[in-house]
Amino acid sequence: MTGEFETIRELFAPLAHPEWGRGLLDDVAVVPSRPGYDLVLTKDALVEGVHFLPDDPLDTVAQKLLRVNLSDLAAKGAEPFGYLLACGWSPRCGWSEREDFVLGLARDQATYGVMLLGGDTVSTPGPATFSATMMGWTPKDSVIGRDGARPGDRVFVTGRIGDGRLGLMAAQGRLRLDQERLDALIDHYRRPAPQWAFAPMIRELATASVDVSDGLIADAGHIATASGVGIVLDLERTPVSPAGQAWLEGRADAQDGLLQLATGGDDYEIAFTVRAEDEDRLRRLAEQIHVRVTGLGEVVAGTGLHVRHLGAPVAVETPGWTHD
Amino acid sequence: MTGEFETIRELFAPLAHPEWGRGLLDDVAVVPSRPGYDLVLTKDALVEGVHFLPDDPLDTVAQKLLRVNLSDLAAKGAEPFGYLLACGWSPRCGWSEREDFVLGLARDQATYGVMLLGGDTVSTPGPATFSATMMGWTPKDSVIGRDGARPGDRVFVTGRIGDGRLGLMAAQGRLRLDQERLDALIDHYRRPAPQWAFAPMIRELATASVDVSDGLIADAGHIATASGVGIVLDLERTPVSPAGQAWLEGRADAQDGLLQLATGGDDYEIAFTVRAEDEDRLRRLAEQIHVRVTGLGEVVAGTGLHVRHLGAPVAVETPGWTHD
Repeated sequence: MTGEFETIRELFAPLAHPEWGRGLLDDVAVVPSRPGYDLVLTKDALVEGVHFLPDDPLDTVAQKLLRVNLSDLAAKGAEPFGYLLACGWSPRCGWSEREDFVLGLARDQATYGVMLLGGDTVSTPGPATFSATMMGWTPKDSVIGRDGARPGDRVFVTGRIGDGRLGLMAAQGRLRLDQERLDALIDHYRRPAPQWAFAPMIRELATASVDVSDGLIADAGHIATASGVGIVLDLERTPVSPAGQAWLEGRADAQDGLLQLATGGDDYEIAFTVRAEDEDRLRRLAEQIHVRVTGLGEVVAGTGLHVRHLGAPVAVETPGWTHD
Repeated sequence: MTGEFETIRELFAPLAHPEWGRGLLDDVAVVPSRPGYDLVLTKDALVEGVHFLPDDPLDTVAQKLLRVNLSDLAAKGAEPFGYLLACGWSPRCGWSEREDFVLGLARDQATYGVMLLGGDTVSTPGPATFSATMMGWTPKDSVIGRDGARPGDRVFVTGRIGDGRLGLMAAQGRLRLDQERLDALIDHYRRPAPQWAFAPMIRELATASVDVSDGLIADAGHIATASGVGIVLDLERTPVSPAGQAWLEGRADAQDGLLQLATGGDDYEIAFTVRAEDEDRLRRLAEQIHVRVTGLGEVVAGTGLHVRHLGAPVAVETPGWTHD
């Protein structure tokens, strides 16, 4: 029993928004207008073997799907409310795998306050492929872009950087650390934690913002390019998790290790800029909601991303990770 | 050169909504609220080898992707304005295939008045996979559902039924007709023509409505189920194209032939119900905009879909097509 209708009725319908999802019976979702607010939309796809591993449990795949999209909204200061979903089930996705997938969705719906609005479920002879269109609100004209950084602004990042890359290596069995750290890294790779609670701070204080999916250096570079400014990053300030620290300690070349973490991608933290005079307020507000923020450098006149390590310039050949 | 960034910058950015798409540089689209209107969203996916054939030109695949989604909106009476897109490029999708795909998008953007808002582009080792989230507006609280049909209403369908199924057979080389008709059917399979100009009529006159994607009988059945009514269809009234007529004439069993067309799916016409007193007005309005509408039967008290052929009941074992 893995037909389209059964899958929708038995598995997805219980997740649907009670009104806007129309019971998933009407091919469309209907979202009433919310005067004074803008609708913010993002759409990311995950392909088995490319964005997740063939042996990743499907509940974590569902969670990763929602979270990579939620991360985009958080970085723009938007509050999520719902999503549309397209599932391309591979032959390995029988009923019980679909149940697992839906369990992951249900868990994250509760965590992040979003509901299923609609979508499509199809079969594919290839790798399992999922995409979600995540939607949120921002007060009118308040979306934070990549293009607002100005010379003198400070550059910050939430959380820690590098566990996305290390998590992939751990999941592939390419990392030697104790099991507890390996497990934490694998869990981060499978289920990144988007900084959704940080969205109001972004709206209030950020001049430019981006989620760290390509890699810290690449994504900070996106802000520099879009804003028409230069950005100077001090590599040694990159915030690293205990597992990342343990990994770094095993490396002969600390600079190269840090560079790998800062170009690794899949972190789903937020890199952003604030005016220098807002730095104190930022640190205070972040502490109140228990979100770690780390200053990495500053915005300067000019163009391009300039990485330093202990004051000396570092050449960066490949600033970020790309799946293509 | 088939990287994600090049594909977005060179191929997709020129298609983007000049304001809401944010140059496709910001991970999100931002759509301002439109007071007095509801936002209507639908999301359909197409998989190579399942929903289109491996030798279908990619410009037609792009058009099919937009059109199957536009068809959902038309059936709900919504006016489309934009879409998000997820492209999973298979190894066969080099730069020139991506150019073809974008050419198809550009053509249909002009035809249907929609613009690209954002999305994702990834690589897949499997079959090419595409999904779109199409968005439109309806005046507040005016979306036509599947659940408004009442006993005494008349059942109608736009256009002609069966060319979707015959088009697939033609594209697979399983049909013997003259080449001109084969070409027309293959083109219909690759690039169905959603009844978007009919959306205002649906809003004004339909009591229930659905687009014919699963098959005329299955989709009419969806209206019956959702509305809690019975529907009686007269099979001989099924509107058939000249190519469909030629195909029917070569069949020994006319009833079976009609049944195949009415259960074939992929038609992307609109099946809908109107009150009996609105029938004349419907026919007049449809004639004004040159959309063929055909009366097929009526809504009755009770439940279920009842098919007749020349007055005699017809047993329908499989009312529609499913890809799963």
